[in-house]
Amino acid sequence: MKPPRTRSRARALAAATVASVWLGFGCGPRTDTHPRARSAETTPLASWNDGAAKAAILHFVATVTTPGGPGYVARADRIAVFDNDGTLWAEEPIYVQLAFAMDQVKVLAPQHPEWQTKEPFKHMLAGDASTLLSGGVQARTAALAAVHAGVTTDEFEAAARNWLRTARHPKTGRPYTDMVYQPMLELLDYLRAHDFKTFIVSGGDVEFMRVFADSVYGIPPEQVVGSQNQLRFELRGGKPALVMLPDLQFVDDGPGKAAGIQTFIGRRPIAAFGNSDGDQQMLEWTWAGTGDRLALLVHHTDAEREWAYDRESPIGRLDKALDEARASGWTVVDMKTDWKRVFAHD
Amino acid sequence: MKPPRTRSRARALAAATVASVWLGFGCGPRTDTHPRARSAETTPLASWNDGAAKAAILHFVATVTTPGGPGYVARADRIAVFDNDGTLWAEEPIYVQLAFAMDQVKVLAPQHPEWQTKEPFKHMLAGDASTLLSGGVQARTAALAAVHAGVTTDEFEAAARNWLRTARHPKTGRPYTDMVYQPMLELLDYLRAHDFKTFIVSGGDVEFMRVFADSVYGIPPEQVVGSQNQLRFELRGGKPALVMLPDLQFVDDGPGKAAGIQTFIGRRPIAAFGNSDGDQQMLEWTWAGTGDRLALLVHHTDAEREWAYDRESPIGRLDKALDEARASGWTVVDMKTDWKRVFAHD
Repeated sequence: MKPPRTRSRARALAAATVASVWLGFGCGPRTDTHPRARSAETTPLASWNDGAAKAAILHFVATVTTPGGPGYVARADRIAVFDNDGTLWAEEPIYVQLAFAMDQVKVLAPQHPEWQTKEPFKHMLAGDASTLLSGGVQARTAALAAVHAGVTTDEFEAAARNWLRTARHPKTGRPYTDMVYQPMLELLDYLRAHDFKTFIVSGGDVEFMRVFADSVYGIPPEQVVGSQNQLRFELRGGKPALVMLPDLQFVDDGPGKAAGIQTFIGRRPIAAFGNSDGDQQMLEWTWAGTGDRLALLVHHTDAEREWAYDRESPIGRLDKALDEARASGWTVVDMKTDWKRVFAHD
Repeated sequence: MKPPRTRSRARALAAATVASVWLGFGCGPRTDTHPRARSAETTPLASWNDGAAKAAILHFVATVTTPGGPGYVARADRIAVFDNDGTLWAEEPIYVQLAFAMDQVKVLAPQHPEWQTKEPFKHMLAGDASTLLSGGVQARTAALAAVHAGVTTDEFEAAARNWLRTARHPKTGRPYTDMVYQPMLELLDYLRAHDFKTFIVSGGDVEFMRVFADSVYGIPPEQVVGSQNQLRFELRGGKPALVMLPDLQFVDDGPGKAAGIQTFIGRRPIAAFGNSDGDQQMLEWTWAGTGDRLALLVHHTDAEREWAYDRESPIGRLDKALDEARASGWTVVDMKTDWKRVFAHD
């Protein structure tokens, strides 16, 4: 890892200077505007407790946005990338997108009698998600792609939008879009208020995330990177349509996230946020650039307000990336102590 | 094609109201800012002659940006996509990227003795581009991908940047980046001044275009969509690197352009600009959306100031798309009569 010493020193320094480093806002035109941003202008990171994680964020942003300072970064280069599941919203007890696919399998089953005896559909129709989860990201992503094969992107969007409106989280009974982390919403706002361009870079299906990313996170469709079915252009009833094929165009996970950043964004981020081993290479790629960088992992340590899991979890396993974080001086958020609130409804 | 009648009528109306429809600028924060935009504020489309093409552009922009009007489009949905070769800069007598690859083959040949007897390298080393051109887009794109296989994205960027600085256009002796169309630069500025977000959607290699798109067109890397090698994340000398593989991740041409728009941008454009049959489905996809749309083809009709070619050309063949343009009421730019100047140096 390049300049780890400088960064560790910067991080230690940051902890001692929490209050002093926060600088003013509104220093120019914004690349992203969103209603939520207003809250950030009064109290930045209000749901974050004072501590090393908050201090590292404040120090980093102050460093890269101080004109004339040694770490100044031009606005156009302030690219920040966020994993979605487990980083911006809850992924327990089931990936939201998997819950959607399990329901879609039931909706679409009458058109596919062969699904009754064919995997992965048979398990999904029986309500068994555990087999898919134990198969790893590639197998799971391929299964989800198969479920949605044959529908057009317009049909998929309508189905996902309708499902998100009506489906409820199995533990809290709330809409899934209520299960977003309030501190991370504030962090998104805070970065955008400092002219960062914020992207999602997630293993989840890009079409699914685009349905809610704008209204929930303030991230427009063109700033969402994810896994994706191959698409075929064809005329349906004389009208152009894009049909989702069973094969994957791209699996945006692990090393694929670093590749996805280059493929879809085309420049290296200066800040990256994740929560699992699937984010490790994205953080490595970000961290290895020149100049000051922020690499941050959300560590799920709060069994009471959310969930506590890491090295052994089939969902959002955090093992190697946690070791690398500690060795390299990445920032690790302890949800239990670093966050005043987890959800807006707390 | 949906509402062709309405659109034809709109176009006819537009021709009669060139002067009256142009509205004021600066009605809000810009999503893209670029020094060139200033020129648009004084005289929009200064290098365009009055005529049906200019009128259609002015009318369309007025329609979608008039608050409270029947055709008003929210700022975030003002997505405009541009082909690159032959639409924003000259593609004759050779695609610029092919010229770069032909030179790179010579630079890299000592490391690849097998290239002396292997196609497509053998032809390229002999300076013969015609074989590649006659092979079509898929074959050409695959050949270019093979040339760059094994280098990292950082190495590729450095090589392309250096080449663009030193290489000269075979006819004019100017840097290739001088061979951009002044009227199209003004059009990009004009759209951005009205809060459009401008994207390139080209069959060319995305990494190559990203090297110059920001400085030449004011289009940042994350708004460039193109064909692309698959990338592999690996550690080289302990540092993360993205290595270009010989296989293609994506061919962004023809039907692939409509798919690429959904894959990379995730929403349907309201305006699309091209010059060849490779742009046909991109224009169809754009045109088929609801509300007012602009679909425009640049027709190369000026053998004196640029080149004249269409139905029979191996470069930028314009045949089926020209027929569809005339049948559907798309806007066709006659370079000879519609453009006062072709290049800034004219």
